[in-house]
Amino acid sequence: MTTKSPLAPKRFPNLPKINGVTIAAGSCGIGYKGRNDLVLVELDPSTAIAGVFTKSLTAAAPIHWCRYALKNTRARAIVVNSGNANAFTGRHGDLAVAATVNTTAKLIGCRRNNVFISSTGVIGEPLEVEKLVNTLPKLKDKLSPTSWKAAASAIMTTDTFPKGATRAADIDNISVALNGIAKGSGMIAPDMGTMLGYIFTDANIAQPVLQKALKTAADKSFNSITVDNDTSTSDTVLLCATGKAKNKLITNLKDPRLKNFLNSLELLMIDLAQQIVRDGEGASKFIEITVTGAESKRAAKTIALAIANSPLVKTAIAGEDANWGRVVMAVGKAGEKADRDLLHITIGGVPVTRCGARNPEYDEAPVKQHMQGQNIEILVDVGIGRGKATVWTCDLTHGYIEINADYRT
Amino acid sequence: MTTKSPLAPKRFPNLPKINGVTIAAGSCGIGYKGRNDLVLVELDPSTAIAGVFTKSLTAAAPIHWCRYALKNTRARAIVVNSGNANAFTGRHGDLAVAATVNTTAKLIGCRRNNVFISSTGVIGEPLEVEKLVNTLPKLKDKLSPTSWKAAASAIMTTDTFPKGATRAADIDNISVALNGIAKGSGMIAPDMGTMLGYIFTDANIAQPVLQKALKTAADKSFNSITVDNDTSTSDTVLLCATGKAKNKLITNLKDPRLKNFLNSLELLMIDLAQQIVRDGEGASKFIEITVTGAESKRAAKTIALAIANSPLVKTAIAGEDANWGRVVMAVGKAGEKADRDLLHITIGGVPVTRCGARNPEYDEAPVKQHMQGQNIEILVDVGIGRGKATVWTCDLTHGYIEINADYRT
Repeated sequence: MTTKSPLAPKRFPNLPKINGVTIAAGSCGIGYKGRNDLVLVELDPSTAIAGVFTKSLTAAAPIHWCRYALKNTRARAIVVNSGNANAFTGRHGDLAVAATVNTTAKLIGCRRNNVFISSTGVIGEPLEVEKLVNTLPKLKDKLSPTSWKAAASAIMTTDTFPKGATRAADIDNISVALNGIAKGSGMIAPDMGTMLGYIFTDANIAQPVLQKALKTAADKSFNSITVDNDTSTSDTVLLCATGKAKNKLITNLKDPRLKNFLNSLELLMIDLAQQIVRDGEGASKFIEITVTGAESKRAAKTIALAIANSPLVKTAIAGEDANWGRVVMAVGKAGEKADRDLLHITIGGVPVTRCGARNPEYDEAPVKQHMQGQNIEILVDVGIGRGKATVWTCDLTHGYIEINADYRT
Repeated sequence: MTTKSPLAPKRFPNLPKINGVTIAAGSCGIGYKGRNDLVLVELDPSTAIAGVFTKSLTAAAPIHWCRYALKNTRARAIVVNSGNANAFTGRHGDLAVAATVNTTAKLIGCRRNNVFISSTGVIGEPLEVEKLVNTLPKLKDKLSPTSWKAAASAIMTTDTFPKGATRAADIDNISVALNGIAKGSGMIAPDMGTMLGYIFTDANIAQPVLQKALKTAADKSFNSITVDNDTSTSDTVLLCATGKAKNKLITNLKDPRLKNFLNSLELLMIDLAQQIVRDGEGASKFIEITVTGAESKRAAKTIALAIANSPLVKTAIAGEDANWGRVVMAVGKAGEKADRDLLHITIGGVPVTRCGARNPEYDEAPVKQHMQGQNIEILVDVGIGRGKATVWTCDLTHGYIEINADYRT
């Protein structure tokens, strides 16, 4: 077990009960000795579900199942195991999914396609599904509306802290709650990869609206973080709305009554996404990169991710070096329009460049001080249009190499 | 100075004279104390030149000049300095280029657009061009047909060994020679980036043919290597043909008389490209990745580069771990068609997977032994079509972090 990330939040937040959601965590012995590795969530029959999944073409077996089940738009149960990703496991993997779904559907008394499952851990090892299905009845018996931290802890692989967040929102003067838990930091050592997120609300929102809201917020949160630019075979974010707050059903994304909820959802998802970056393998700095003046939002994000994924930028930050030449390089390689002679780079609020060259009034002292802190801010204006995007990443340190190369020794 | 890469060739090869090419190296004091940092090449007036350059949108000032001069298709001189990239230096950078070109044209007695220049080193620092132009006359006086190793050494930044290669070819039963020198390994510490290559031949080949031949060979060599996926602002490869071998002028790329030359050119450029990978920052393993069965050549290369650029694949190899699950992940994230259930991965000649899961007969022992060697071979068939590509990279080690983050301490 690695020590807790220096960027970890002080404590796990207090997550309130969500009407219609109960949770249990337990140990089935698939992944880890001496800690929980299995989570069961039961959802009220009124629950609508939205989901976004990895774009990997070698996606794990549970991803294929979830995509199929999502067509049904309603959920009664979620099962998550850690320790084995059930990825690249061929027909055995599909059978393991079927066994988990069948057992859960019988336990909960629901249809098979009301059951959603995720697996996170080693790729390519057959999943010992008997252990999993034999443990599910015990979890069914201890379902509780308060087990958020236990669930966030059980889905961890080599995460160094459990990740949770909560927000409130108003719909039609009815207060609704949003809770979320997540795990991961890109691809996690020793040899697996997964980012998982589960969000629950008692709001009453039609499924097509929920799905669009999730997609939009995911682009601004989980799809705006990077640790090592390696896409997992298991990435999953599910959003479940029980409807128990009994606001009048929202059927349109543009409904003004939904505005406050959408804002809270986005903030909650950014919170969880940033916690994943803060648990990035070997991370010692949390980095926010904002690109403005790009041709479009999409172009701005491409440039911001080119900077965030550059190993030379990340190692410079690890070395507390304001090496802005590497930021220029990353802008250049991104392939999106940028005017070299209008490029403005600001680090920690200090203008570093002006008109395609170093700012004649550049003072390195305050920038040096900023680089020595834990939170690094880089702002790049590329001088073309009005496209803007913000992404978050962490630095690249010896810790990353130790976790991913040295663990055998 | 870092120690020589463990993957370095035993010695610098013997490069023969090339009729029409003379070279001098010297010190102008821009970059490094106690070593040469400036090269002048004089070319016979008959010389045709071809060039390929970085696609970076923040390309350095010399790149803009070379693109312009290349329209003239003929070269009389090449000037290269190390220690300063003259990149992101605004108007000052363009004036430095102009001063270098003017001085060289007068010295050699040629037109300005017969002069090609490259700069490699720190980004964003103004180039002290007076030092450079004041040293050029001394270099003019000591031009020699044998100074290949001196030139390869003078263009190094933090390369740990000079890079050179030579090949012979037959055109119409006339023997021609090809010499090449190169430097770099992606972006080189402390804070610059450049891959430079210069190839010389006495063959008599029309410039449009030379340009096409260079582009084709560059795609199979320099454009098929990666160290850290960071594109330099100064990448340049120039190919100069003096015509002094007096073979009948070749005016068509498909001319069968050119076949042997094209083959030698490709082998020479692959040799130089592989030397750059062998000097990759912190490299301890040389890795060859071949992808077959892709939809197209382009798709195969995209998948191969996704594997080669994955920090998780590279760290696993550094740790001598046959972590093939990470190769599956990289294939999945590449975005090109792949049939998960036909994916075949072979490491060191041993079939690791079969039909979308681990090969039931997989024996880890010979793979483990292969991973402990210096040369790693990964073959991936993605089961779609007939597209094939090979790329080369190195592993990601503590050495990379030390060079790029720790150099301040």
